Parts: sequence; C-alpha cells; structure tokens
Amino acid sequence: MRTFAVVGHLARTDGTFPLEDLPGSAGRMDLLCRCVRATLFLSHGLRRDAECRLLLLGPPDPPRIVRFSGERVRSLSPDERSAGSLMRKALSLPAGDLYRESTPGVEVRRGTLADLMDGGPWAVLDEDGDDLRNEGHPPPCFLLSDHRDFTTEEEDIVSGLPRYSVGPRALHADDAITLVQNELDRREAGWR
Amino acid sequence: MRTFAVVGHLARTDGTFPLEDLPGSAGRMDLLCRCVRATLFLSHGLRRDAECRLLLLGPPDPPRIVRFSGERVRSLSPDERSAGSLMRKALSLPAGDLYRESTPGVEVRRGTLADLMDGGPWAVLDEDGDDLRNEGHPPPCFLLSDHRDFTTEEEDIVSGLPRYSVGPRALHADDAITLVQNELDRREAGWR
Repeated sequence: MRTFAVVGHLARTDGTFPLEDLPGSAGRMDLLCRCVRATLFLSHGLRRDAECRLLLLGPPDPPRIVRFSGERVRSLSPDERSAGSLMRKALSLPAGDLYRESTPGVEVRRGTLADLMDGGPWAVLDEDGDDLRNEGHPPPCFLLSDHRDFTTEEEDIVSGLPRYSVGPRALHADDAITLVQNELDRREAGWR
Repeated sequence: MRTFAVVGHLARTDGTFPLEDLPGSAGRMDLLCRCVRATLFLSHGLRRDAECRLLLLGPPDPPRIVRFSGERVRSLSPDERSAGSLMRKALSLPAGDLYRESTPGVEVRRGTLADLMDGGPWAVLDEDGDDLRNEGHPPPCFLLSDHRDFTTEEEDIVSGLPRYSVGPRALHADDAITLVQNELDRREAGWR
C-alpha cells in the first residue's frame, strides 16, 4: 500500500465551504483535492493500492483527518470539485477519535499529525532532501506539506525520518506525489 | 522555451460553459485546466519559459486554439476554476486565423492541429514510446492527447515525430506534463 499524507495548514474543518472557492475560503482545499487525484488516479482507473490522508488544521474545529482509500472509494472523479464535494460530506459528520466512513472509501476522524502517521515506515518529501531516484529502497509512505513549510512543532515530530527530494525545483505537493508515484511505478515494472 | 500542446477532443469552443461543470458540459475542460497548471506552475511562482497550447475540438465551433504564456500571463491561480475562467474569456472572443489576446498572456485563434504545432521540434507523449529518461537530447515541444487517443487523421499528421513515454503506467495528461517538466528540470540542473 502506497500512502501519501498532506498537511493542510489552513484547510477548513467543517463542511460549509463553497465548492466555488476551494483556494480561498476553504484554505487551499484545491491543492489538497489535487493531491487526492495525484495519489489515486491512473489514466483510466484508480490506483487500488494507494491511500491519501489529509490533515486539516484550519478553522473552525481542527485538527481533522480525512482519508481516501483507492481500494474502496466510489463516485470520485479527477476534478478538484469532485474530491472537494466528498471532503465537504466528510467534514459535515461529527468527528471522534476513530475513523468513520462518510461516503464509500472516505473516512474522517479528529486527529493530529501523529495520528495521521499511523503505520509506515514514513519519509518526508522535502526539496532539500536526497534525490529519491538514488534511494535503493524507498519507503511506501510519504508525508508532504501544503504551500506552507512544516511548523517547528511538526518538524520535531518528523525529525528522525528520511527526507527525499523529487527534483531541483520546488513544486506543488500534487506534482511531488505524481513524481513519487512514477518512481515507484518504474521500480515495480523494472524500469529505471 | 518549453511548450506543451494538448488536444481536447470534446472541449467546448464557446465561452458559455459553467465553471461548476468543467468535466461534463465543458468537455473535460478540467483536464485541460490542469495541463495549464502542470505546464506553468512552480511551488511559488510561474515557469516564465513555458507555454501551454490547447486545441479545442468540441461544439459549437471547432477548431479553436488557446495559448497560455508563462512569461506574460497574469491573474492565473493553480486551481482548475482559475484557468477555466480565463479559457471562458478567451472563447468569448470572435476568433480569426491569427492569435488575439483575451487577457494578459492568454491568446485565442481558430486553428487546426497543424497550426497548434507551429515552431518545434516536437515529440509526442505516448505510453508506447521510448522511455524519455533514456533520450540524450529531448526536444523542447511535446504534444499530448486528452483522455481519448489521437484520431487516425491526427496520427497521420504526427506520424514522423519521435514518441516518448514517461513511465510504465498510463497517466493523465497533466501528470505526463509534470513528469516531462521534472526530467527537463533535472537535465538543466545537472541532476540525473
């Protein structure tokens, strides 16, 4: 199972945000929706062995985690609005300390960065990390930040993890996920 | 100058489509909007040396070409709706046989696949092509299709061009652009 987890520092934590303004009033939810797409979609189908987890830290009631499972998700299209609509349904549920399914393959809970990183082993995607292409055995789980850097508190939590870069330019989180998926695809298929 | 050109076989050719339904009534305009993002955006800024051209072949009045210039575009955000809004403005103009600017850095004309491929040299991105990582001197211009294959007539036009693949799985056009941009970034920066 490949897992991508993204920290959304401003992302709205209730289901009232307008689908017409994912970047603004929803706190860069557009970026998180594209991360779902980059994690789960192939050209004509879904990556059934992949999962995208989103940590939402914006108002009004953080922290929330929403998890999209490629194995079980339904009614998800690649456009931002489609993932945004499922996010809104998930965030409309009262959230406890355990995952609860809002729509097929989409689950929500109250949870912190430590909860987000259940399972593993994990690596951090970081433009200053080692080139992922040179890593002989990349882990299956990758943590990314949104358009903001990790906070000092977040850096403390992930400080012991390996850090990888996907290239020489700083890219959007969804592009970084696409590049990691490609690198893992190539290894699975014997391409290098 | 890096150029990515995408054929949108169903994409609407007037400015009346709703921004709330880019995948459906706009003819997979969501995918084309993401191709604009993948071509032009870095994490915190634009790729000023890149250009995205879209060939629109859907109703009511094909063919149209819309061109986004990274050097000159303004008021473009990475979300699909932002590019869709600029597309709609471009397609609201009467189109002739020369490019006409609709908003800064966005131009529109009536034009065919041959017009789309002005300049060059070009290559085609194709899942059955040669691995781009193994190409010593990739060209600066890449042609892609949307979620549909090239038609027989289109294949005739591009038949002599080199064809490259970005990996073992069939991906969305925007993911393919992200992967080519990364490969070109790596070569420019001396990463391999």
